[in-house]
Amino acid sequence: MEYEEPKFFQVMKYGIEADRDVIDMVSGNPDWEPPTALREALAAYAELPSAEFQYPPSEGIRDLREAIAVRRGVDVDRIVLTNGTGEANYLGMARALERGAGDEALLMDPVYPYYPGKTELLGGEPTLVPTERDGGLDVDAVRAAASEDTALVVLNTPNNPTGAVYAIEKVREVVGIAESVDALVLVDEVYDRFDHTGSFESALSLDSDRVIVTSGFSKSMAITGFRVGYAILPDAHVDAAKTRHMLVNVAGSRPAQYAVSHALEATEPEYYAEARERLADRIDAFTEALEAAGAEYTRPDGGFYVLARFEGFPGTMENVKRLIDEAGVAGMPGDTFGTARDDWLRFALVTPRSLEAAERLVDYFSER
Amino acid sequence: MEYEEPKFFQVMKYGIEADRDVIDMVSGNPDWEPPTALREALAAYAELPSAEFQYPPSEGIRDLREAIAVRRGVDVDRIVLTNGTGEANYLGMARALERGAGDEALLMDPVYPYYPGKTELLGGEPTLVPTERDGGLDVDAVRAAASEDTALVVLNTPNNPTGAVYAIEKVREVVGIAESVDALVLVDEVYDRFDHTGSFESALSLDSDRVIVTSGFSKSMAITGFRVGYAILPDAHVDAAKTRHMLVNVAGSRPAQYAVSHALEATEPEYYAEARERLADRIDAFTEALEAAGAEYTRPDGGFYVLARFEGFPGTMENVKRLIDEAGVAGMPGDTFGTARDDWLRFALVTPRSLEAAERLVDYFSER
Repeated sequence: MEYEEPKFFQVMKYGIEADRDVIDMVSGNPDWEPPTALREALAAYAELPSAEFQYPPSEGIRDLREAIAVRRGVDVDRIVLTNGTGEANYLGMARALERGAGDEALLMDPVYPYYPGKTELLGGEPTLVPTERDGGLDVDAVRAAASEDTALVVLNTPNNPTGAVYAIEKVREVVGIAESVDALVLVDEVYDRFDHTGSFESALSLDSDRVIVTSGFSKSMAITGFRVGYAILPDAHVDAAKTRHMLVNVAGSRPAQYAVSHALEATEPEYYAEARERLADRIDAFTEALEAAGAEYTRPDGGFYVLARFEGFPGTMENVKRLIDEAGVAGMPGDTFGTARDDWLRFALVTPRSLEAAERLVDYFSER
Repeated sequence: MEYEEPKFFQVMKYGIEADRDVIDMVSGNPDWEPPTALREALAAYAELPSAEFQYPPSEGIRDLREAIAVRRGVDVDRIVLTNGTGEANYLGMARALERGAGDEALLMDPVYPYYPGKTELLGGEPTLVPTERDGGLDVDAVRAAASEDTALVVLNTPNNPTGAVYAIEKVREVVGIAESVDALVLVDEVYDRFDHTGSFESALSLDSDRVIVTSGFSKSMAITGFRVGYAILPDAHVDAAKTRHMLVNVAGSRPAQYAVSHALEATEPEYYAEARERLADRIDAFTEALEAAGAEYTRPDGGFYVLARFEGFPGTMENVKRLIDEAGVAGMPGDTFGTARDDWLRFALVTPRSLEAAERLVDYFSER
């Protein structure tokens, strides 16, 4: 079973133990402040009567579910709050795979490594489907891969690691293909607040009974450690997801849900815009430097990762360690993300030292 | 798939909507204060730098794992922090059932309804094994039920709902039986701070590579909504549990782990003793009243539930509703907990109105 964290930790550990200053571009942890209202709400929660410290409803506290329902334009009964987007994906994928509609999950390549990991945990068979050169959705490839055994298609938009933002028309076509083979489509939209194109459209707009949308507040509120996410399921699949959620986790953590609920209500659009603009500036600077270093790269339309390929320097773990030792920059090996980009490296721009890292890369590759 | 919460919510809802005052003896939510240090730590956490709001290690924050290791006398590497004891049980049961060592889980009857629910979710087959009249472990019954298909035996001591505290010698015999059929034994000790006999001994004292122990802080710190629990696994099974934990939940909620960690360090034994003594007083008063009402009952050796049987008044959902309407006391139907006590009712003593409830029961049954 292959998934991100072990390699991720391996690289982090190597970077920390290195005999020099290393800029961490490995983790997906936002480096900016959470909303002020989140801190305030958590402090206020600590003073509440002890009854407020007991089990929330299994599907999550009502206020937060209602706020999500309004923002997302869906019925509140379709929403299950989860222990981060990770659990939301687990619940949605489990539902698709347990229906007796086949064992195969189609995953786009490059792939976020938890998806094949979860598929195998659930007894399913992951199949990697090629995407376009820039990471865009290749509808013909999905069509060619789909069969009666396909139970699930997983999409992630804005995408980790490619930064692609899928055109909604292509997502609609994929949903049509899924329908023809009795598959469900799970769309992980956790990076939806980091759309740099202004054209991102949620798969919820398709209003399809085949579509499960997942998301969370880890990235948008800079709180990956709080573990507050959600799944929005079609009516026919909500009860199964709730049952699994209850049997696995009973409920999510109430202080975290409470803090997010208040922060969601109180936080102005400017907060999200500021984070997005900060990232866009970093992307500009970083990709300019990549250009100068003669690297091939994908300029992300969304999210905060950049994939880059340096001639004669494939994205192996060995080269990642070399880059740490010789350039002082830690990225992730491309082969963590399936087969499509195993020549590449992934850099996370959630560090104020992104520009400095870019300069180090320029220097390093100009001297080789 | 049958489990407690739906029936639990059904009864709660009926009680709330009843046209009279109803004393809630349904939920397992402690009604006393959490440790002061827990509130303080949560408030302090809200002020920490934002880096402290990001992913904790998947297996949980180090300080808390180390504190548990010291208290439990085990190597810290064997400990995985989980989203409550519920997830700890899920991970341990999954590990036992996924080894190719059989599909059957032996569960003691009366049974905490999540155990059969989780077994079925994991593709296993639950088999209910009778216990002694007072809820004690019936080793011969376990031996008679065990077979090559048995992969798992689940014990819960102190027990919900019977209040039995299992003699460690009997647990040792069950572990011997498990060994002979290649099964693991999961011992859920979440009520270990509520041992009224002074004789409870953890299954960890057996030092067996067959034993998984689970527990959590929901009950002992009166924070069922925080979701901080843990599994202690034999070396050979830790990695599998960590992998599943990561693929399902990524990590637990950090503010909750942080608050529990500080509270565990700072809280004196008096805090736990006070809660235990309060419960012992309630048990005395409640069982005296049951005696006066002519009921049969099991006096709990541990935990905070009392099972009672009223002649001619079986513990059906219908009678539970009748008791709400006619006596103003809400309990749980015995048939929620397997087959052994379907004539009985379960009352949770986590309300300051336990004595008042007992008096209502005396009045009600003396007038019938």
